[in-house]
Amino acid sequence: VHPLFELDVDVPARGSRQRLRHLHRQLRTAIANGRLRPGLQLPSTRSLAKRLGVSRNTALALYDLLLSEGLVAARPGAGTFVADIVRPPVKEPVPAGTPDPRLPSRAHALDFAMAAPAVQPIDIDMRLGRPDASLFPYDVWRRVTSRALRILARAPADYLDPAGVPQFRQAVSTHVSLTRAVACHADDVIATAGAQQAFDLIARTMVVPGRTLVAVEDPGYPPLRAAFAAAGARLHHVPVDAEGMIVDALPPGCRIVCVTPSHQFPTGAAMSPRRRNALLDFARRRGAIIVEDDYDSEFRFGGRPLDAMQTLDQTGSVFYVGTFSKSLFPALRLGFVVVPAWARAAMLVTRKIADWHGPAFSQLALAAFIEDGHLARHLRRMRRIYGERRTALYDALSCHCGDWLEPIASEAGLHLAAALPPAMDARAVARQAGENGVALGSLNHYAAAEAACNGLVFGYGLCPADRVETGVSRLAAIARTRLR
Amino acid sequence: VHPLFELDVDVPARGSRQRLRHLHRQLRTAIANGRLRPGLQLPSTRSLAKRLGVSRNTALALYDLLLSEGLVAARPGAGTFVADIVRPPVKEPVPAGTPDPRLPSRAHALDFAMAAPAVQPIDIDMRLGRPDASLFPYDVWRRVTSRALRILARAPADYLDPAGVPQFRQAVSTHVSLTRAVACHADDVIATAGAQQAFDLIARTMVVPGRTLVAVEDPGYPPLRAAFAAAGARLHHVPVDAEGMIVDALPPGCRIVCVTPSHQFPTGAAMSPRRRNALLDFARRRGAIIVEDDYDSEFRFGGRPLDAMQTLDQTGSVFYVGTFSKSLFPALRLGFVVVPAWARAAMLVTRKIADWHGPAFSQLALAAFIEDGHLARHLRRMRRIYGERRTALYDALSCHCGDWLEPIASEAGLHLAAALPPAMDARAVARQAGENGVALGSLNHYAAAEAACNGLVFGYGLCPADRVETGVSRLAAIARTRLR
Repeated sequence: VHPLFELDVDVPARGSRQRLRHLHRQLRTAIANGRLRPGLQLPSTRSLAKRLGVSRNTALALYDLLLSEGLVAARPGAGTFVADIVRPPVKEPVPAGTPDPRLPSRAHALDFAMAAPAVQPIDIDMRLGRPDASLFPYDVWRRVTSRALRILARAPADYLDPAGVPQFRQAVSTHVSLTRAVACHADDVIATAGAQQAFDLIARTMVVPGRTLVAVEDPGYPPLRAAFAAAGARLHHVPVDAEGMIVDALPPGCRIVCVTPSHQFPTGAAMSPRRRNALLDFARRRGAIIVEDDYDSEFRFGGRPLDAMQTLDQTGSVFYVGTFSKSLFPALRLGFVVVPAWARAAMLVTRKIADWHGPAFSQLALAAFIEDGHLARHLRRMRRIYGERRTALYDALSCHCGDWLEPIASEAGLHLAAALPPAMDARAVARQAGENGVALGSLNHYAAAEAACNGLVFGYGLCPADRVETGVSRLAAIARTRLR
Repeated sequence: VHPLFELDVDVPARGSRQRLRHLHRQLRTAIANGRLRPGLQLPSTRSLAKRLGVSRNTALALYDLLLSEGLVAARPGAGTFVADIVRPPVKEPVPAGTPDPRLPSRAHALDFAMAAPAVQPIDIDMRLGRPDASLFPYDVWRRVTSRALRILARAPADYLDPAGVPQFRQAVSTHVSLTRAVACHADDVIATAGAQQAFDLIARTMVVPGRTLVAVEDPGYPPLRAAFAAAGARLHHVPVDAEGMIVDALPPGCRIVCVTPSHQFPTGAAMSPRRRNALLDFARRRGAIIVEDDYDSEFRFGGRPLDAMQTLDQTGSVFYVGTFSKSLFPALRLGFVVVPAWARAAMLVTRKIADWHGPAFSQLALAAFIEDGHLARHLRRMRRIYGERRTALYDALSCHCGDWLEPIASEAGLHLAAALPPAMDARAVARQAGENGVALGSLNHYAAAEAACNGLVFGYGLCPADRVETGVSRLAAIARTRLR
């Protein structure tokens, strides 16, 4: 019996589209692990087909695939033989957790988590910063990606502009001009891999390591802090209140100020017009720049939004960062930064060094998605759905937790923060909720000094309205045992 | 007459799929630029349809799109009105080229170009590092992307593993185990945005700014040098010869050695087994790491490839970097790095800071492309095509330029380098070739001290075999005038 037939090859049912793929994997594995040894002559396609009960064409295609991979070789007139492939050596496993002297000591020091680790399994998911991607119009996306592919197939292959494909930059500049009154042209837009890459590029371009003082909100967004810390910035934590960052508390020597004016992360407060003007004035007088993170401003449930800082700015001080991680879904990895003209060339050098340029394919697809009105339509639909979830959350909180939990006023975004009385430790409450299947955040996680903030954060991006009420009432039951 | 009808709206032919999109763009622009002023009542859909000669449904869809974008508002019972949108302010243009004191002085110092700027227009394109993406199987790619989209649509939306989706890491580890005998599991693979992001992540993780001494090949790959320089490395340029990097010339204090052993960039030399062992020995004795850039090793035209450094390594010293920019196309932005276990966690922290994780969508598509054997099939086809182009290039060079140009032996890759006699300045020859429509590179461009190398580099990725001969004969004519 030929060794191939001793392999006990598993043949999928006739007509299965997986048939060839499945057979190919089994033979490839047998060659890779040496069960079919180098130099072995394979059976003819005719006898293979007969033995496995597949068509001659399938057997031919199978050998052809193995031939492509160099796993078998054909000798004309003699037959097909298992190739003499080099097998990777078996290496000694490295004991896990052993620190290696080759690793610089600061390499691990920069780690961060966007949210505290959730207890598994999650029954009611009210974690932060997650949109409901199950409602994304994937069929529309498939159409725009097919179109993007046709454009790519016609275009000459080359490395592209680090700023992104022109169609994307044009669509984004029109979008932010219309929806956020951001004053920009396509040339001012640099496509990024989500907001995170925008923060990283700004930090790497604008921070002089060990020197530049950077103000961040406290509580604030840990991944942004990590990007500036990694670039060697000296971080200064500035407290926030119901009007957003307390601008008067900015140290005079600060050169970069990072803010979330539309919807402070994580408290949800909107920066007041007074503070916005004070911050722009600070930037103008001190020669500082402002990093405006407008991460979820598409979702507004109240009145008219306040102008973006970028709209008000007259001195080219604002780097406006936007992302499609919240309006579409995070795995898309598309965001952008609107950059003042004087910083553009330097930002693009940093981008080239970091990863040259982004994926043209997704950028073209998103450009078509925006241009054809699908983004606006999706946002309108999601605004309605998130609005219902938000109302359900407000109602449930006032009904079940009104006497001990005080929501922080907020008219936008995908989450809501609420202050706890000092007697209750938010981290302990969040942990206990997690143990009861309700995943939510604690404000403390986002604060520089953990004890400074005592509150909970409820994300309603992922949680249907009817589940919100269940989650909150479960939380109330936990709180009652603690308050007793 | 209603102001909308004074706009001279351009209506595409009946039945055009672009009709709605086209009308929508025109109205959006008119609202955005104020030609349709805020508060203006729009005509009814019935009269709009009649005047424009479109169906009532098209008119309804048009208003619906504008409504989604917030550009018009519907008042029940009263009609549809242009919304009071905030128009971005007109800002003073910043004079180009004015240096801004807010920009740190080193921000521009890191710029680089992979190739010398090509003279336009290019008639015969023999630039480096470009594969022929016009031969890429886009129809297959469309199928695998559709499948990837279906997987994504089923999966919960969340931020993903910074290392990449499991399917991609599994497919890549199988691929490099089989084709390059790289010893790795899926867990050792980190997906990156091309090789460039791999270099950048290694540099940011492993370099202590101002301290770490990094050896790079001279001539070598400018974008890699830029990534290490940006991370604050002290660069040491090590000369190369016909056996690759001269390992004896490594300074003892060097902690990171960057090499292209399969096909030295740009000379094309393969590193000899003797040098490979010497380099591994250096790394072991000095506690140094090796960054192995295996950028175009899929294209081999000679005998059996030498083992990868990663295969030979027994001390977890090698970071093996691969890319699909050459085997598929650069705009895909997919590459990977196989990381020693001790460095994995730290590399992933750097990745999270840089851009969190890559695009799941392309990773899933490429995983399916590899798994189903399409990559192997494409590589086999391209090997044959590039082989023909390479033979045409060798033949043309020996026929037309044999007396003054000496090709550097090379059995792999997508380009060929050749040494020039000292009397001929490669940069001047390349420039003059460019003026005659033939784009090719000069070795000098890739050297630390430009004068050190005198040679030309011919890329055959993009240039069909019949055009190669024309290009080389045109080059020979230029050389004759110079040699005279």
